[in-house]
Amino acid sequence: MNSQLVLSLDAMGGDHAPGIVVDGAAVFLKGRRRKVRLLFHGDEAQLKPLIDAHPELAAVSEIRHTESQVDMSAKPSEAVRRSRGSSMWNAVQAVRDGEAQVAVSAGNTGALMAISKVCLRMKAGVHRPAIAASWPVPKGFSTVLDVGANVECTPAQLVEFAIMGEAFHRAVHGKDRPTVGLLNVGQEELKGNDVVRDADALLRAAHLDMDYRGYVEGNDISTGTTDVVVTDGFTGNVALKTAEGTARLVAGWVREALTSSLISKLAAALLQLGALGQLRARMDPNNVNGGVFLGLNGVVVKSHGGTNAAGYATALRIALEMADSAFLNEIERNLSLLETALASEAGTEVPAHGQEETA
Amino acid sequence: MNSQLVLSLDAMGGDHAPGIVVDGAAVFLKGRRRKVRLLFHGDEAQLKPLIDAHPELAAVSEIRHTESQVDMSAKPSEAVRRSRGSSMWNAVQAVRDGEAQVAVSAGNTGALMAISKVCLRMKAGVHRPAIAASWPVPKGFSTVLDVGANVECTPAQLVEFAIMGEAFHRAVHGKDRPTVGLLNVGQEELKGNDVVRDADALLRAAHLDMDYRGYVEGNDISTGTTDVVVTDGFTGNVALKTAEGTARLVAGWVREALTSSLISKLAAALLQLGALGQLRARMDPNNVNGGVFLGLNGVVVKSHGGTNAAGYATALRIALEMADSAFLNEIERNLSLLETALASEAGTEVPAHGQEETA
Repeated sequence: MNSQLVLSLDAMGGDHAPGIVVDGAAVFLKGRRRKVRLLFHGDEAQLKPLIDAHPELAAVSEIRHTESQVDMSAKPSEAVRRSRGSSMWNAVQAVRDGEAQVAVSAGNTGALMAISKVCLRMKAGVHRPAIAASWPVPKGFSTVLDVGANVECTPAQLVEFAIMGEAFHRAVHGKDRPTVGLLNVGQEELKGNDVVRDADALLRAAHLDMDYRGYVEGNDISTGTTDVVVTDGFTGNVALKTAEGTARLVAGWVREALTSSLISKLAAALLQLGALGQLRARMDPNNVNGGVFLGLNGVVVKSHGGTNAAGYATALRIALEMADSAFLNEIERNLSLLETALASEAGTEVPAHGQEETA
Repeated sequence: MNSQLVLSLDAMGGDHAPGIVVDGAAVFLKGRRRKVRLLFHGDEAQLKPLIDAHPELAAVSEIRHTESQVDMSAKPSEAVRRSRGSSMWNAVQAVRDGEAQVAVSAGNTGALMAISKVCLRMKAGVHRPAIAASWPVPKGFSTVLDVGANVECTPAQLVEFAIMGEAFHRAVHGKDRPTVGLLNVGQEELKGNDVVRDADALLRAAHLDMDYRGYVEGNDISTGTTDVVVTDGFTGNVALKTAEGTARLVAGWVREALTSSLISKLAAALLQLGALGQLRARMDPNNVNGGVFLGLNGVVVKSHGGTNAAGYATALRIALEMADSAFLNEIERNLSLLETALASEAGTEVPAHGQEETA
């Protein structure tokens, strides 16, 4: 493991870039003992004064100038064609060139995924990358994927997501043998659609040395019924955003309850001495910011576009954890298990891996 | 409008039936001025002592004895074949026979939907019924559908859901001109899958006299960005359960914060004088229990199977609101608008309504 880690930042990506990127990096660095270097890709004229305002940050940062940047509304296919040399492209390319371990961007998700695929290439055995999110549960975090890279998935792709998610969870959340569930609905005649049912059959048949627990439902995500929850990118994205919206709604109710009267305010002041800070931290969506792209030869972390400095700092912490982990090796180990399992299944009625892959 | 409303209850459906059904009915009746009669379908030997324990309830209740009941794990197709004469079947049949305005069950959702379709038949112009849920937002409620009846939907079915949901919201939540959104993801290259895109095109093209606002995302549901959120039953069910799980998680955090130390407990005691009661009520999932089946010639309300008496009482309150509303007329009015709109669109490139309907 490297003694010095390097994070490569798309300084111009996101709704409030480059300001929150630099401020977020300063928050991230504060009090950190581990030595980290940061590459800022973007407009030097804008970046230099912002970075110089934080001497600690300036001491470990390097600006890689470029004037080009990817538009937040660009289509991914356009982005790939037009974005060579942009701050996003260069941030990812630095990982490919071995200059940095992880790239971070708060820019256009589709463009970032497309650029990452072109620059880093997919791992052998992976047909589609996925975006994994860490989700707060009563004890720690669960891992949910895909949360937005693929709106439609084949059963074999869902199996790949299970494999990548399991490796991710072990590497990042430190659990030796994570449990894995497949997101489904419980109410329907035939228990979900064909894709989910076929993925379930594959996961059961394909002796993957994985603690697969079968179907879970939406409420199981926050309960932490399984460590890893596998779903397609449409459902996963809706679930993630629904949870964020719900947490925000409930936080508003709590705030209202704590400020609705003089007595409530007094109670809030007392709570301030107690556990209100921790409660606030737990309910702050900025503390769970950062989706990780899985399945590539290199690590890319996507921050929310609209995040603030605290949220961006969280994305950088996740990036650092990824860089520090054995994550890529874990995924490779799991993928080779899948290949072996599917090879030994060949000739049975279970569809071979990648058979559905035509696009 | 009838001066006396009659609710027809499947007294044997649900995880804790018939106990919570009777207790829930007693909670529902308490302090209610409007005259309501209740039909309990189920095992008289079990039901009579339970009901007699609540004299107020006994005074307005009638037991319709049957020993048969639908198994919680029965497949819908089986349920329809075998369940004639069961408590669930009889509860729905009483609506069909004009004895009651609304049927309520906490039993097997798939079976309840199948029985409802057979007994009540779908409204002319409706191809698939949907389940609508009322969802708390900062001001009042939004309506989300489908939350579990159809795992896969065609674009034309999503348009029907929009029409039924808009009518439901106007009738039940009293808003004159509800806004309507279509649930989608914002991150993907092509903005969602083909079904969602085609439904969007249909909703825009089909001059429905509806305030359609286009795509919304998961976080918009709890924000109340639109009054009605339309989606397929798979995504809607996952979103609903994810929100419930998230609310429960956050409620746990709040509880922990209010009991973590002596000072916190003192603060909680102070809050008790203030707004803690309201906060608790808002966060209690029992206060949003009750999915309404839309698209049938009659109203059926589905309670959570695992609910408690307070939750079952909520489902009965929703049933009463439905019975009291002009909901069925509103839906008919909207459906006739759709027919007119689609007739006038015939010959254009917009796919005709029901064209995708092959199953």
